[in-house]
Amino acid sequence: MGRTVFTAIALLWSVSFCGAQTAPRARDLGVPFEGTPGPLNAITDVKGVEVGHTTLISGEGELKVGVGPVRTGVTAVLPRGRESSDPVFAGWFTENGNGEMTGTTWVEESGFLEGPVMITNTHSVGVVRDAVIAWRVKKGQPKDSEYWWSLPVVAETWDGWLNDVNGFHVHPEHVFAALDNARPGPVAEGNVGGGTGMVCYEFKGGIGTASRKIPERKGGYTVGVLLQCNHGSRHELRVAGAPVGREIPEQPAYGRDNGSIIVVVATDAPLLPHQMKRIARRATLGLGRNGSTAGNGSGDIFIAFSTANPGAFDAKKTTRPEMMSNDQLDPLFEATVQAVEEAEINALVAAKTMVGIRNHRVIALPHDRLRAVLEKYRRLGN
Amino acid sequence: MGRTVFTAIALLWSVSFCGAQTAPRARDLGVPFEGTPGPLNAITDVKGVEVGHTTLISGEGELKVGVGPVRTGVTAVLPRGRESSDPVFAGWFTENGNGEMTGTTWVEESGFLEGPVMITNTHSVGVVRDAVIAWRVKKGQPKDSEYWWSLPVVAETWDGWLNDVNGFHVHPEHVFAALDNARPGPVAEGNVGGGTGMVCYEFKGGIGTASRKIPERKGGYTVGVLLQCNHGSRHELRVAGAPVGREIPEQPAYGRDNGSIIVVVATDAPLLPHQMKRIARRATLGLGRNGSTAGNGSGDIFIAFSTANPGAFDAKKTTRPEMMSNDQLDPLFEATVQAVEEAEINALVAAKTMVGIRNHRVIALPHDRLRAVLEKYRRLGN
Amino acid sequence: MGRTVFTAIALLWSVSFCGAQTAPRARDLGVPFEGTPGPLNAITDVKGVEVGHTTLISGEGELKVGVGPVRTGVTAVLPRGRESSDPVFAGWFTENGNGEMTGTTWVEESGFLEGPVMITNTHSVGVVRDAVIAWRVKKGQPKDSEYWWSLPVVAETWDGWLNDVNGFHVHPEHVFAALDNARPGPVAEGNVGGGTGMVCYEFKGGIGTASRKIPERKGGYTVGVLLQCNHGSRHELRVAGAPVGREIPEQPAYGRDNGSIIVVVATDAPLLPHQMKRIARRATLGLGRNGSTAGNGSGDIFIAFSTANPGAFDAKKTTRPEMMSNDQLDPLFEATVQAVEEAEINALVAAKTMVGIRNHRVIALPHDRLRAVLEKYRRLGN
Amino acid sequence: MGRTVFTAIALLWSVSFCGAQTAPRARDLGVPFEGTPGPLNAITDVKGVEVGHTTLISGEGELKVGVGPVRTGVTAVLPRGRESSDPVFAGWFTENGNGEMTGTTWVEESGFLEGPVMITNTHSVGVVRDAVIAWRVKKGQPKDSEYWWSLPVVAETWDGWLNDVNGFHVHPEHVFAALDNARPGPVAEGNVGGGTGMVCYEFKGGIGTASRKIPERKGGYTVGVLLQCNHGSRHELRVAGAPVGREIPEQPAYGRDNGSIIVVVATDAPLLPHQMKRIARRATLGLGRNGSTAGNGSGDIFIAFSTANPGAFDAKKTTRPEMMSNDQLDPLFEATVQAVEEAEINALVAAKTMVGIRNHRVIALPHDRLRAVLEKYRRLGN
Repeated sequence: MGRTVFTAIALLWSVSFCGAQTAPRARDLGVPFEGTPGPLNAITDVKGVEVGHTTLISGEGELKVGVGPVRTGVTAVLPRGRESSDPVFAGWFTENGNGEMTGTTWVEESGFLEGPVMITNTHSVGVVRDAVIAWRVKKGQPKDSEYWWSLPVVAETWDGWLNDVNGFHVHPEHVFAALDNARPGPVAEGNVGGGTGMVCYEFKGGIGTASRKIPERKGGYTVGVLLQCNHGSRHELRVAGAPVGREIPEQPAYGRDNGSIIVVVATDAPLLPHQMKRIARRATLGLGRNGSTAGNGSGDIFIAFSTANPGAFDAKKTTRPEMMSNDQLDPLFEATVQAVEEAEINALVAAKTMVGIRNHRVIALPHDRLRAVLEKYRRLGN
Repeated sequence: MGRTVFTAIALLWSVSFCGAQTAPRARDLGVPFEGTPGPLNAITDVKGVEVGHTTLISGEGELKVGVGPVRTGVTAVLPRGRESSDPVFAGWFTENGNGEMTGTTWVEESGFLEGPVMITNTHSVGVVRDAVIAWRVKKGQPKDSEYWWSLPVVAETWDGWLNDVNGFHVHPEHVFAALDNARPGPVAEGNVGGGTGMVCYEFKGGIGTASRKIPERKGGYTVGVLLQCNHGSRHELRVAGAPVGREIPEQPAYGRDNGSIIVVVATDAPLLPHQMKRIARRATLGLGRNGSTAGNGSGDIFIAFSTANPGAFDAKKTTRPEMMSNDQLDPLFEATVQAVEEAEINALVAAKTMVGIRNHRVIALPHDRLRAVLEKYRRLGN
Repeated sequence: MGRTVFTAIALLWSVSFCGAQTAPRARDLGVPFEGTPGPLNAITDVKGVEVGHTTLISGEGELKVGVGPVRTGVTAVLPRGRESSDPVFAGWFTENGNGEMTGTTWVEESGFLEGPVMITNTHSVGVVRDAVIAWRVKKGQPKDSEYWWSLPVVAETWDGWLNDVNGFHVHPEHVFAALDNARPGPVAEGNVGGGTGMVCYEFKGGIGTASRKIPERKGGYTVGVLLQCNHGSRHELRVAGAPVGREIPEQPAYGRDNGSIIVVVATDAPLLPHQMKRIARRATLGLGRNGSTAGNGSGDIFIAFSTANPGAFDAKKTTRPEMMSNDQLDPLFEATVQAVEEAEINALVAAKTMVGIRNHRVIALPHDRLRAVLEKYRRLGN
Repeated sequence: MGRTVFTAIALLWSVSFCGAQTAPRARDLGVPFEGTPGPLNAITDVKGVEVGHTTLISGEGELKVGVGPVRTGVTAVLPRGRESSDPVFAGWFTENGNGEMTGTTWVEESGFLEGPVMITNTHSVGVVRDAVIAWRVKKGQPKDSEYWWSLPVVAETWDGWLNDVNGFHVHPEHVFAALDNARPGPVAEGNVGGGTGMVCYEFKGGIGTASRKIPERKGGYTVGVLLQCNHGSRHELRVAGAPVGREIPEQPAYGRDNGSIIVVVATDAPLLPHQMKRIARRATLGLGRNGSTAGNGSGDIFIAFSTANPGAFDAKKTTRPEMMSNDQLDPLFEATVQAVEEAEINALVAAKTMVGIRNHRVIALPHDRLRAVLEKYRRLGN
């Protein structure tokens, strides 16, 4: 039984080739959202941001630890793309800490995110972390003769319902692939990358993305969100305020809130580290709109960064980073809440029914049913 | 122009006398909420909790600083009632810190809330704080000859749109009255106590309360919420998922998110301090359901306490407080989110149109319009 | 029995007139400290910083609550002086939270300290807080017709061993006096202002100050510290590493760690808010050098601000504040630790034996004994 | 050039066989410390705690990345020993966050440390983390068919001055060895385990340990500390208050504060999670006594746990953990500060001169010189 590695290249190809026609997103189905998205309605609307996925799917049926079935992967978000090692201002927040995001102690202390944000499964955080360092070392940043620390940011959610999580199927080469294949442009959603084996409101979950463009008179900035959703009890799910989970109760995956959700927020707005924390904290409100109660088993961990102020991390001299006033932040807060809300519904809409270990089957959110519920509650396209 | 002091006695009298008949609450109007409330659907469903209000309303028309118009007050929440000085386990959280809640440094450090939670206007936090100490000293707790610290918890929201906030109209006697008149039983809502002059989603806001009873098989505990709401932009308001703010756009108070919201969560569930913080943090999710984006100008500060474990604060010896397991907390998290969601709508439903300084007029949420919007979106009673 | 108000004017006068001759400071006694102080070896070496004290001393003998004896006061630290209302970047930290520092929730959220830092006794935090707002209102900042919030920073330590703390002897006029009389230049130490009735390592404590000047090649910045010390058990006290508390065991005030210590750090170094938190956190290390173990009863709360970047708080537009790199901060960290260490010993050296309520007597650290101990341990002037 | 693996077994053997005679500890040299240590003066004085080291030393001379020289390892601290998977109450704190300690988000949220604390080099955190999960899976805890999360606690300091850190020489088998060989009893110090290649105050550093026993009338509890020290500038080092770094300036490793320090505090005192955080925060004060200023490059991260209250982590029901009152904690705070102070000096005294990559040579703190300095400052044995 061979393992198949779908790299980001392959996935992006399919998206760019046929995405719009065959893969409707939430607003294509008539889900009404507030605010104005960017051209891609994706985190990559924030200029410079690149995303790469490595998706690992192989095997079927009985669980044989170390063999499969495998339903997992790695997602890489690079704030300034593959070619830059210039850190970005960042902040993080945890609404419920039953999860891991490495590297955050230094983000909090320094105000900088010095590399990519990686997302994978719970048992592969370590291999991904060290592989990010190895990738940097390979690229010669910095010279290996210099004193330098390495504190990568790697987050996780648990895919052990569908994936042979104890088989440790993510290897360094998968991490390198996700990083090397990261690209701007459309972002694959659903059962891809770190989100491959995830479950959300007991439907199939995974990766989702969305963006908002602030009006020019308020700065014209963009906020982009990418999230890996793996949380929620079915009955809680609301879509645009409609009680979708209550209306589609069938085939819940487990019967309780078992997972986690990782949210990455990017913006080109010139914010300082303490302001990035404020942005990160708003993710909770977006999740709240979709019905979350942040169950005990959930690692609801968020990180936000700004691509503004290139060069602010200059060890040798003082710099003059641009800073918005606190009084100017409301449009960005609103954009963050809206983009988180939509990105999660996008993940649910994109994900496809999956069968994993022990023949566990997790159904996709049925598009027709979703439309019917929105229709019932007068929210279809409204 | 005389100042009229409506004390908690007076207000509770009116409530107990005619409340149910004449003052419908949100669910009386057909707003659908999840979960099961306690008998009073109030924070006082948590046994031992007492609430007192002092409401200060006097004057009309032109602002004369130090004279009026006065539209303010003080609300007191006493975890174990007036007769007990036994501290409770507590935790706090701030979603957006443009506000004050004194005493929280010691709550965080010690795990205990040692006295009442007071809520007033922004410029009266100090007088209320010192008056709480004076009230304790008067009651002889502890002996005045003993070493003892005094770090009262006092929170605020800003009522300067309607109230002569620079006139400093709250005096120590008003604080004593709120404390002395605190009672179990029904809790007055709307334009009372600290909430007298508040504005919420640009409708008239103020004090709201609600509760949830957990099923017996999950422990049978109660979660009660009292909040003072003074935040939100009109267009953001959702009620039970329906876009009420968008549907009732007229006469917004200011045109932006200008205020704050203080949330007090009480429970009889046996939780330790670090677990109380987890409860406090869930308030954000309840506010998210109602549409909040936590604007820069908002002090969204929450405190949660448990009335379980009397006697846990015994300076002289070890104790054995009861602790729920983290795995048992989900029903409490859900209850907290639900009670916060409902308490805020209760505040909006209870508050009445008010005219304050400079003839600023803030309209109440019109009940008929609310029902009409819910009807439109098929959420009336559903 | 009349109350005597010694205002900052009077105290500063005595200092400027005869200070150097008659009031030796710690290094005048031969205590060796690391680093290079500024010209005044005071927080006012940071340009713009002004300090004012109101000292309240009256009555003797028996305690009559509300009458006296009174041994208390208020200290005001104004980051940019009385004439400026331009906020400064700031951060705070608490090593042990048995105390109060109001306004810190907004400091943490916004990154700004918008007014003075006030220090007083535990039971007067409220009156001082509201009086700071009243003082601003009186000065017409901002126009009373504008929406504006007011979240003053007021800290405390408990002086109930010497002072009639339940008598609430600090009144608004004392607060106004401390603010109005704030000045640059030498800073009175010991039994003055908020420090009047304080006890430190069971010697008489109070206000202390010190500063460090960073070498020009490392930026040439200044770090200044002012603290109000009221903590520590006698046996713990170390001075320049010598076990002074163990060597001078007589007449301890209480026999245990009963108090608190508030530290204010000022700098002209261009640091962002998250960097100011890093500075604040270093105060612990300075206190550690003097032997602190941060007892349960101690409110060890620190705030740090930067006078660089005037105009950074401009609500209407983006700004470009100057920021040192994190890699440049070590000299500032070292300066902070050193200045905190020295400021506390300065407080002990300046304070004079005081008799307060119930004839409680707290002895000053005897200068000759201090010198003898340093001599014994070869640290006198070394 | 073969790699040599010294496992914990081998090292402990040498310690138990000849330790007392040939390996003096700090107090054997006459360094005076406050307080009373436990029988081993080690973290293992806290009953149940087991420690294992895997030490990797091989190669000399030129750096060949991936080959060597290797000067690194792994240290495991198991709160209840290898045979127990019963979590312990815990809390953590970071004085300066230029480092990593994985798993802390869940420690903070849940109040529990669910497995061992591992310490290694910066670039091996990932492999150690995943290997801890693999070790648990191998042991069948919990059943692999169950839903279960895995958030190991792994900390690091950077050994790239002596070790081929980019060679990633720590492998899963080294992690398993450290865990499997963990034992109660004496703990090897200095160039062992995770501390193998570390540098402290520019002398050779590494692992150090110490303990304190609280008097019976104050509870009779034990506090044990194990730390991995890799921080500090030479001139800052104080030993028992004497300026040792200034007096022994020769052959400093780098000329600045370059490293980190990880502190693990164990106690059998019955403390709740929020109280464990209070304990963790005291580590700063112990480091302050030794002269630390917590440089920007330092990851000063501390974790504290209590072995009291076995069974408190019972997912299915409420429990009644024992809790000391906050008023009883001062002896534990003092013990923590004292044990941290001594453990670091123990590490310096135990570590031996080491030559690593590029022939970098880091000298041990010379015992005779240390004694001479203490003699000079009248602290030898005093």
